[in-house]
Amino acid sequence: MGKKKFVEAITSRDEDFARWYTDVCTKAELMDYSEAKGFIIYRPYGYALWENIKDYLDKEFKKTGHQNVYMPLVIPESLFLKEAEHVEGFAPETAIVTIGGNETLQERLIIRPTSEVLFCNHYQKIITSYRDLPKKYNQWCSVVRWEKTTRPFLRGSEFLWQEGHTVHKNEVEARKETMDILDIYNDLGRNLLAIPFVVGQKTDKEKFAGAVDTYSIEALMHDGKALQSGTTHYLGTGFAEAFNIKFQDADGEVKPVHQTSWGVSTRLIGAVIMVHGDDSGLVLPPYLAPVQVNIIPVMQHVEGVLAKAKDIKAQLEKANIRVDIDDTDKTPGWKFSESEMKGIPLRLEIGPRDIENNQCVLVKRFNREKLVVNLDELDSIIPNLLEEIHQAMYNKALENVQANTRETNDYNEFKKIISEKQGYIKMMWCGKRSCEEKIKEETQATSRCMPLSKESIGHNCPVCGEEAKHLVYFAKAY
Amino acid sequence: MGKKKFVEAITSRDEDFARWYTDVCTKAELMDYSEAKGFIIYRPYGYALWENIKDYLDKEFKKTGHQNVYMPLVIPESLFLKEAEHVEGFAPETAIVTIGGNETLQERLIIRPTSEVLFCNHYQKIITSYRDLPKKYNQWCSVVRWEKTTRPFLRGSEFLWQEGHTVHKNEVEARKETMDILDIYNDLGRNLLAIPFVVGQKTDKEKFAGAVDTYSIEALMHDGKALQSGTTHYLGTGFAEAFNIKFQDADGEVKPVHQTSWGVSTRLIGAVIMVHGDDSGLVLPPYLAPVQVNIIPVMQHVEGVLAKAKDIKAQLEKANIRVDIDDTDKTPGWKFSESEMKGIPLRLEIGPRDIENNQCVLVKRFNREKLVVNLDELDSIIPNLLEEIHQAMYNKALENVQANTRETNDYNEFKKIISEKQGYIKMMWCGKRSCEEKIKEETQATSRCMPLSKESIGHNCPVCGEEAKHLVYFAKAY
Repeated sequence: MGKKKFVEAITSRDEDFARWYTDVCTKAELMDYSEAKGFIIYRPYGYALWENIKDYLDKEFKKTGHQNVYMPLVIPESLFLKEAEHVEGFAPETAIVTIGGNETLQERLIIRPTSEVLFCNHYQKIITSYRDLPKKYNQWCSVVRWEKTTRPFLRGSEFLWQEGHTVHKNEVEARKETMDILDIYNDLGRNLLAIPFVVGQKTDKEKFAGAVDTYSIEALMHDGKALQSGTTHYLGTGFAEAFNIKFQDADGEVKPVHQTSWGVSTRLIGAVIMVHGDDSGLVLPPYLAPVQVNIIPVMQHVEGVLAKAKDIKAQLEKANIRVDIDDTDKTPGWKFSESEMKGIPLRLEIGPRDIENNQCVLVKRFNREKLVVNLDELDSIIPNLLEEIHQAMYNKALENVQANTRETNDYNEFKKIISEKQGYIKMMWCGKRSCEEKIKEETQATSRCMPLSKESIGHNCPVCGEEAKHLVYFAKAY
Repeated sequence: MGKKKFVEAITSRDEDFARWYTDVCTKAELMDYSEAKGFIIYRPYGYALWENIKDYLDKEFKKTGHQNVYMPLVIPESLFLKEAEHVEGFAPETAIVTIGGNETLQERLIIRPTSEVLFCNHYQKIITSYRDLPKKYNQWCSVVRWEKTTRPFLRGSEFLWQEGHTVHKNEVEARKETMDILDIYNDLGRNLLAIPFVVGQKTDKEKFAGAVDTYSIEALMHDGKALQSGTTHYLGTGFAEAFNIKFQDADGEVKPVHQTSWGVSTRLIGAVIMVHGDDSGLVLPPYLAPVQVNIIPVMQHVEGVLAKAKDIKAQLEKANIRVDIDDTDKTPGWKFSESEMKGIPLRLEIGPRDIENNQCVLVKRFNREKLVVNLDELDSIIPNLLEEIHQAMYNKALENVQANTRETNDYNEFKKIISEKQGYIKMMWCGKRSCEEKIKEETQATSRCMPLSKESIGHNCPVCGEEAKHLVYFAKAY
């Protein structure tokens, strides 16, 4: 049995970014392909990333009064067809159950591509009075959307996500919820993923099927493409009208409710890989990392080395640091490469010489900086190092966004930038779908979002020359 | 708009236990029916029960070296058909996806009824050496099994569960895993659910499709019927042979792996309802309860009452007690009934008179005992009370099991007990399937399990008179 192919060099990012990406996904053991096309297996290391995202968000959702529920996996076709715009958006990509218990079903069942209609149907039953409002529900589940071209974490026929669905007595409250969740998503990037998102509103063309307004967090990948990383929707009263969700208000009047929905998915794992990764593999931000410190004993056959390594592990665990130890019979060099491939934020090397001097060597994954640290100071120094690494990774990603965000009032220059440099381009826009479609057709760039700040950099739409209404971030996107 | 029908009397248990059960499920707002038959909605209060079970078990699994993964929702039919016994057991109750993205699929996709084949197919790819063993994976997900007769939590076309799938280098290690998990399940009953399980081995007739040996935890419901509440399986090498999962051992030989699988589901919620509930509704054991103390202000319009109630809430939350306050405009009597229906372990009443005396009234849900408690002592007394209630509920359930466990060496007496009293009957058995089937046919009782203690109460099988091999717990079951 040969050694694992683990540390064979992966494709470099600049040679072939798409191949580099799938190399990292498989060689860092984040996922594996299954026998069903487009359906992936989340391996322990990949699933642990999702668990950490989930833990962070679940706490935030609960802190802000949301409750978890679980809706059925399937939607009867007649129910699915109730809200017209929504159907139009999702029908082409559904998977359908037609057989159950060896019999052809009388009514076909759609596997949920998203659960608006299930929530609406339930809300219709349980909401009658203003006393029943607001309802702030969320669920963690998987959804199925049939995709022709799939890529691990980025686009799959099945993916894991959370979907929030809330009901409010008026527009003001529902719009506040839409923006509050957008803040929570943005903070997730700031605090856990070390990703600076561009936050804004989607154009009508790009908004969710059935929404009045859609907002998104957008991240910039190493190759200069943008990735939509999460969305929140103000749904208005459209679903309420289609599903007859009404309530008697305190003033005695019967009114339709105002709704929101919002979600982030395992796509965020793809964002982390493509924002932070390098040619040696994954680079994980410390608070997201399932293992924060990887202890690698050097000359572990020498008496006392393994014992000391285990002492250090116990010491760090007491300080709530997530720590692992690689005491396999591989060479230290091999272990270093594996540790880099898996993106573990700190590598801790300890050998006989270090023990004599009561010290160890720490190596930061993200910039390979080495430090010699006194063993007695480890549990106080490491938390500071993790925080420092987190900030440095965030700042590095932010600098990349800033360096790759350009603005122009000239559509020819826009085309030139897109073809040569990629990244974000800020440009004014008249608000007409035709200009947006022309840009997409001619450059492959799409409108990512309109920043909330309402800033302006010009008076006219560079495409048609008419009066400009919004500043838009454009980019090629995943 | 009328008041909610919340506290209308529910059916009494002795009048119609089945109806009492569904009354509790819906009126305690644990679940609702969806438009797809057999698929239920887990409402916030019901889902919170599952979250608490999940948190408890997930910690135990991780502590014992298990890792979470996520396998696809669907299994291509050809893969599903690989292990013959397994197929025979599950094929009749599968739901099948035949259409994806508006096209008829070339190969039909089975929605997972359980994921053995998905795990096996993955294990075959990633295991080559003894260094890769053991693999101890678990997943939290929903599965679909087409059911004709469904009941909330007990039997549904979709249910939530965890499924563990582990791979070991030899039989001893795999059998140890099977029993270790059985212990964890049994402890879940002891520590969280306040349910005393009868633990034992399933007969060949009742074991899992594809297992060598199956073990189960069985609980006794208020109506004298048993409920299989969780199972662990030693799978031997059957799946390894079917899926070609082999490894090179330290001795150089290539061997098939030994496997286990195990699971508990949202069925446990049904067990809690039917073991502890009473004619006023749900009765929750304190450590499982989403809300442990429900504060009900009395004469809350009097100045200072609501403020005091909120102070107490903050005080108890600091002591890590899960506490809620009902400050709606309903009457106290109404609130008391709701609190009882929801099975909240402690009700805390506080009114102007109480405040004057620096005290409050605590009422235990499970036996309605009242205590007057000094407000300064609340946060030290309540944790003790919760522990006391937990123990008392466990003991009460245990006494019920003991009072309803009978033994006999006479098959006629067996029939008489089953028809008159239900509960468990311990009886010796020859090991032949024909006797087991005769008992089931004539009495509707099924073998629940063979206790691990190997105790014996007679020499012959009372059905056929031949030599007895095992003591068996029989009961009518859900």
